[in-house]
Amino acid sequence: MTLLGLGLMGYVLADTLLAAGHPTTVWNRSTGKGADLIGRGARRAASAGEAIAASSLVIVCITDNNAGRELVQPLAAELRGRTLINLTSGSSSEAGDISGWAAQHEIAYVDGAVLAAPDGIGTDEAAILYSGDRDAFDQHNSVLRKLGTPTFLGNDPGLAAPRDVAVLGMMWNILNAFLHAAALLQSASVSATALAPVLEGGIATTTGWLAGYAEQIDAGAFPGDDATIATHLAAMTQLIDESNARGVSTDLPRQIKAVADRAVAEGLGRSSYAAMISQFRSPE
Amino acid sequence: MTLLGLGLMGYVLADTLLAAGHPTTVWNRSTGKGADLIGRGARRAASAGEAIAASSLVIVCITDNNAGRELVQPLAAELRGRTLINLTSGSSSEAGDISGWAAQHEIAYVDGAVLAAPDGIGTDEAAILYSGDRDAFDQHNSVLRKLGTPTFLGNDPGLAAPRDVAVLGMMWNILNAFLHAAALLQSASVSATALAPVLEGGIATTTGWLAGYAEQIDAGAFPGDDATIATHLAAMTQLIDESNARGVSTDLPRQIKAVADRAVAEGLGRSSYAAMISQFRSPE
Repeated sequence: MTLLGLGLMGYVLADTLLAAGHPTTVWNRSTGKGADLIGRGARRAASAGEAIAASSLVIVCITDNNAGRELVQPLAAELRGRTLINLTSGSSSEAGDISGWAAQHEIAYVDGAVLAAPDGIGTDEAAILYSGDRDAFDQHNSVLRKLGTPTFLGNDPGLAAPRDVAVLGMMWNILNAFLHAAALLQSASVSATALAPVLEGGIATTTGWLAGYAEQIDAGAFPGDDATIATHLAAMTQLIDESNARGVSTDLPRQIKAVADRAVAEGLGRSSYAAMISQFRSPE
Repeated sequence: MTLLGLGLMGYVLADTLLAAGHPTTVWNRSTGKGADLIGRGARRAASAGEAIAASSLVIVCITDNNAGRELVQPLAAELRGRTLINLTSGSSSEAGDISGWAAQHEIAYVDGAVLAAPDGIGTDEAAILYSGDRDAFDQHNSVLRKLGTPTFLGNDPGLAAPRDVAVLGMMWNILNAFLHAAALLQSASVSATALAPVLEGGIATTTGWLAGYAEQIDAGAFPGDDATIATHLAAMTQLIDESNARGVSTDLPRQIKAVADRAVAEGLGRSSYAAMISQFRSPE
């Protein structure tokens, strides 16, 4: 197995496969990285082309797909007949572009999405989604299983990317809510460490609602039996007021309230929160 | 026990205490609500004053604290010598104002925050925070335990409110991320029901990071060992691109990216995500 890119994630991917006993060749643009991998038996290739030549499975995990294309496109001849698995985060159109290029050069292409942090890699909790060349995925399944729990979504290479960015979006929203809350509570002399468990309880409660709201979305019916958007809107004002009173930024709660304001203006005040999907569907 | 306000939450609170065998008097501004509670033994008072006179413990749970003050302030004489527990969501300054008014009229005041949805009330999973008059809280603890798991935060009546709105903020952020993701994946023919478990996995992963980020915040040191803000920023662009390509709103990802852009401009690009708390501390 060859790993191109030894950033935080790439390093852990290589380290995990090396620890699992797989012959592992690594390459990174800046050569300083991964010295300890070499010490434990990984082979460092002098060039990306040499790294590719060493293995039938090439995994690339770098900053973004622009850098990825610059890296692999001059190496089409070296990649011919091999499997290229792209674990770089990107969009589905990028995945489609790279897949089309790979097909022209008889490279088996699989686009992947790692829905885990580096420290989760190598555990069953690390969900990794794949889409693209099914035969290539099946052929390397035993290796991929070492990295986490793989799920193959289908032959369209663009299937993994939107789920990937959706999970990232959820992650950023949670982290921003946490940081805003930590700033707010810090002003009330509550440490972030003391706040975290309170928020974790709220996260668990909210997570429990998603399946029900998902059913509402799929059915297109949004009865406000639990709490109406109008009720939420009143409470949103309180988060703005509390933020204002404590001198922390009101940007985030105002952005949240703006969505609900628009929904109420469109007559959704008595519907459930999930009815606000209409506000996320269309560009302004 | 007297319950003023039979909205979604107030109704469930009254219903839970009635089911637990507590003599329960209810009052609601519009008289139609709660007929089935009466059928099961609750007493309906003809006026809020009469409802207050029926019990030593009065719980108020209505739309907001403006409505709450309009309701209770003319009834100071009726409330004198009783305990008023306010489970209406509000700000800490509102809680302070009501508490000051209550003290003038010898009313024992406790401000509460229900960190649960109505359907969680009556279970241990329903966390309910209280702050204010400790003696009054202790006196009614056995009743409050029936509603969920009570936590008393301290004598300052403003302690519960900021945690309350912080949890609500987390809830709205998660729901908005879910709705944006559902709109995005709907355009890729993935149902919200199929998406929900993918996001739930991401939520669990992210939740696992909060304690570590909380330690960083409390220590004021933000090593970017897991992923740097610059790495996150690159991926934020992908969520915008994917949203754009699929014709869904880019507002939410652009708002998220704007925060990271500012952080990078301030030199935080190589720090951990938690360093962005600086962006939430100060008003623009």
